[in-house]
Amino acid sequence: MTHWVLTLSCPDRPGIVSAVAGVLAGLGGNITESQQFGDADTGLYFMRVQVECDASREVLDRAVGGVAEQFGMSWELDVVGRPVRTVVMVSTAAHCLNDLLFRQRSERLPIEIVAVVSNHTMLAELAAFYGIDFHHVPVTRETRVDAEAQLLELVHALDAELVVLARYMQILSDDLCRDLEGRIINIHHSFLPSFKGARPYAQAHERGVKLIGATAHYATADLDEGPIIEQDVERVRHDDTVEDLVAMGQDVERRVLARAVRWHAEHRVLLDRTRTVVFR
Amino acid sequence: MTHWVLTLSCPDRPGIVSAVAGVLAGLGGNITESQQFGDADTGLYFMRVQVECDASREVLDRAVGGVAEQFGMSWELDVVGRPVRTVVMVSTAAHCLNDLLFRQRSERLPIEIVAVVSNHTMLAELAAFYGIDFHHVPVTRETRVDAEAQLLELVHALDAELVVLARYMQILSDDLCRDLEGRIINIHHSFLPSFKGARPYAQAHERGVKLIGATAHYATADLDEGPIIEQDVERVRHDDTVEDLVAMGQDVERRVLARAVRWHAEHRVLLDRTRTVVFR
Amino acid sequence: MTHWVLTLSCPDRPGIVSAVAGVLAGLGGNITESQQFGDADTGLYFMRVQVECDASREVLDRAVGGVAEQFGMSWELDVVGRPVRTVVMVSTAAHCLNDLLFRQRSERLPIEIVAVVSNHTMLAELAAFYGIDFHHVPVTRETRVDAEAQLLELVHALDAELVVLARYMQILSDDLCRDLEGRIINIHHSFLPSFKGARPYAQAHERGVKLIGATAHYATADLDEGPIIEQDVERVRHDDTVEDLVAMGQDVERRVLARAVRWHAEHRVLLDRTRTVVFR
Amino acid sequence: MTHWVLTLSCPDRPGIVSAVAGVLAGLGGNITESQQFGDADTGLYFMRVQVECDASREVLDRAVGGVAEQFGMSWELDVVGRPVRTVVMVSTAAHCLNDLLFRQRSERLPIEIVAVVSNHTMLAELAAFYGIDFHHVPVTRETRVDAEAQLLELVHALDAELVVLARYMQILSDDLCRDLEGRIINIHHSFLPSFKGARPYAQAHERGVKLIGATAHYATADLDEGPIIEQDVERVRHDDTVEDLVAMGQDVERRVLARAVRWHAEHRVLLDRTRTVVFR
Repeated sequence: MTHWVLTLSCPDRPGIVSAVAGVLAGLGGNITESQQFGDADTGLYFMRVQVECDASREVLDRAVGGVAEQFGMSWELDVVGRPVRTVVMVSTAAHCLNDLLFRQRSERLPIEIVAVVSNHTMLAELAAFYGIDFHHVPVTRETRVDAEAQLLELVHALDAELVVLARYMQILSDDLCRDLEGRIINIHHSFLPSFKGARPYAQAHERGVKLIGATAHYATADLDEGPIIEQDVERVRHDDTVEDLVAMGQDVERRVLARAVRWHAEHRVLLDRTRTVVFR
Repeated sequence: MTHWVLTLSCPDRPGIVSAVAGVLAGLGGNITESQQFGDADTGLYFMRVQVECDASREVLDRAVGGVAEQFGMSWELDVVGRPVRTVVMVSTAAHCLNDLLFRQRSERLPIEIVAVVSNHTMLAELAAFYGIDFHHVPVTRETRVDAEAQLLELVHALDAELVVLARYMQILSDDLCRDLEGRIINIHHSFLPSFKGARPYAQAHERGVKLIGATAHYATADLDEGPIIEQDVERVRHDDTVEDLVAMGQDVERRVLARAVRWHAEHRVLLDRTRTVVFR
Repeated sequence: MTHWVLTLSCPDRPGIVSAVAGVLAGLGGNITESQQFGDADTGLYFMRVQVECDASREVLDRAVGGVAEQFGMSWELDVVGRPVRTVVMVSTAAHCLNDLLFRQRSERLPIEIVAVVSNHTMLAELAAFYGIDFHHVPVTRETRVDAEAQLLELVHALDAELVVLARYMQILSDDLCRDLEGRIINIHHSFLPSFKGARPYAQAHERGVKLIGATAHYATADLDEGPIIEQDVERVRHDDTVEDLVAMGQDVERRVLARAVRWHAEHRVLLDRTRTVVFR
Repeated sequence: MTHWVLTLSCPDRPGIVSAVAGVLAGLGGNITESQQFGDADTGLYFMRVQVECDASREVLDRAVGGVAEQFGMSWELDVVGRPVRTVVMVSTAAHCLNDLLFRQRSERLPIEIVAVVSNHTMLAELAAFYGIDFHHVPVTRETRVDAEAQLLELVHALDAELVVLARYMQILSDDLCRDLEGRIINIHHSFLPSFKGARPYAQAHERGVKLIGATAHYATADLDEGPIIEQDVERVRHDDTVEDLVAMGQDVERRVLARAVRWHAEHRVLLDRTRTVVFR
């Protein structure tokens, strides 16, 4: 018996749960997990179902496809736990990469890191320790276009499904963000929408906030404005310096990013215009 | 259109979601929320569905009853948001009662407090301010049996569905706990199973723990061993005295109790032998 | 033996701790708590000392005054636990007022609420239950100046040391903020600097954040920009509506405000230009 | 100018702060951080002072030694930030070791890991990647005494000041715990005192708790009863299996252990009989 995960979204109207449950029951499926959400603001309906079923993918595709057509659904069917092919992009900070690599190897994070891409060489050794190919793609003002082309080529060549910006300190072009919409996860080192930009910890210190945070979001053309997947915070004190905030922030960043990547890889995150639905 | 909430449990087997969704769709129902859980340990299946439907209660009862019989379900059908008739029992500490009364009036906690019962008179004025009947039922070693009889009579006379022990410092008899099984919520002032008994904060201080907690659970004959509904903790420091812990603990207690009561009143808590399923 | 609390700030330079400890030891004082902080950014030094001492206030004032002059200190001496005379301002939302009144009566929050002032009458009954004078001071565009004059008069007549804006939905004038600098605590219903202005929960919902927050800060002429005393957050989900956020936010608001008021009343909060030092 | 950290404890009596501050001021020292705590239960006084001072260690030792004798103090003087020489003991679980190694290299955790000791070989490669010597010391019922002798020899040969049991699944003898009292930190995978013993996550699951936790404590002869340094918790749900708890627990364990090791290495943890004073 295969354990499948089905995610879908469509305009909200009565009968969706019943139609989906019916078609799965018709194939002898046993629903083990199911969540749904109707967004009154956007009029969209979202659903995630896990089902044990020994029908083949073709049979399932056809059956679900029928319902999907009827309701105008976007949908995706995957095997529960299949590792999502992932490219991780970094610059010089190791904490997020180290965390993702460790969690992948400890076998609870369902991704397969197929490449580490960096505009520096500092983290090559770390990638090597985990047996991951490391690609050095330097970026300057002049080579930005070429570098992105290289990245995109790599993504295609490796059949990568997900790109994780694990403290990659370069801005991606609008085109790239659009090409890979909903497939690039970025970690921003502040509690968005506070402190956008490059120096959030310095800004947080200056403003005298009592909690610092981190935000994992899908990258969009509009910098730091993409749909938020996960956020978390950590308490700070008046005597913490900017350097202390940076150090403490690393813990929040890696924790938040790991959760966002996990939920994405488990097909728990669905795009609802500028927001996300997270079926935890 | 009425907004209904249906909760059910039964031995786990394929087809439950489909059968329930089907019968509701057949009545023109629109499922707005649905959660389920199959417990591999106990072999039980649990489900909670919210459905907008203009069928009458009789029609719904008959339709759901049919499916229920087929699957051997225990089930309950209620209107979403209907205030649950609740008796609150207290001794002298005001914080939990004050919190429940305030949350009830502010109209977000779906309970109707039909009586406050106490073995002291200290909180009569607070109940009066909120216009709630206050019953003074003193308890001594000799009158315990009578006092419980009085309580039970009151519960029946008022059609109370829920009894909340909001820091009621008397032990209920096994019989009473059995009579009202799954309908008495107690707040214990420790992070169970640590520090059972009457002096948890003193014990916590002596052991030097760095977090104190509170636990809301269904009362059972086995004291402090009932199914846990909710827990939370608060950080303490080496220089906090037992009195400090008591004061800080009041915040955790009232927060935890309010959540447990809310989830119970919203039919989000289902009993799974010695544990609870909480569909949040 | 009286238990004193001494707070001071001055330009940072060596010898401050020793000088203060020395003068207190000279009077037979026993230091029970002491904290200090040198802000490298502003060059200011902050100190808070609790000391058991049977010297009279006059003797203490003279002795501390001598050191203060030597180091150019601003300083304040108070008796530990003396309730700070406080005016609470509200509009129609009850949760913060109810919380402060309850915490004052339960005798762990060292304030004495000498008046509740409101531009509405809705909360008069609640104030009355706790035996606090209620002043209805309506505010319209035309009467704003008069209303503020009335407030200021009341503050002076009652010897109030602190004004708490417990969801008071009117903007205070720059002059009033300056007159009462460091003595007005406001609770803002967002995690500042995110979502300034009047509709933070709607903004938070629209942006799709995963945590909402509240911020207690000293009121300044620059709205929502005053020095932050305390902040906290609560996790929200994609299916929480704006109304849900408002309801959940009430819990965060009252918790954050109560902490800020407590720390202020215990002389734990010192102003460091646009930031606060909080000696917890 | 050297930045020193002085920690001390002694029977509580008036004048300690003044005496210590005075002697440091006499040497031209500038106190940058200072915390103290008098434990009314044990009658002991604890103090931690950071001071910038250009006196030599000999001069400081002599000056502090004088005060220490007068007050009957135990005391320790160290340079702020000096890495504490540490032996990490592990079995097969990598998460705590990986975390400590990473934090050490990222240079914010002030320890120098001088050896990894294990009763298995599985983590040899990880230690090698970070350039740390790995010692395989197998333990059977028969070789336990020899193995501990080997460990102790290593600790002495390497001048190790701290032993961290980073999920080392062997019980240390009473003698070893006594020999290294206050110098062995263990991470226990439960929120002590709940769920002592070897299978805490299974017990937590069975009891149906809503939060799981981890506890870092000094190892003592009395298993799982040593003075607690730090604890933290994570929320779990009814549908989390024991395996899920184990996986989620790893995050709490490594976070709690890293904090405890940091605070110990920064001389922020003082032993107060069966409890700890943590000057954060």
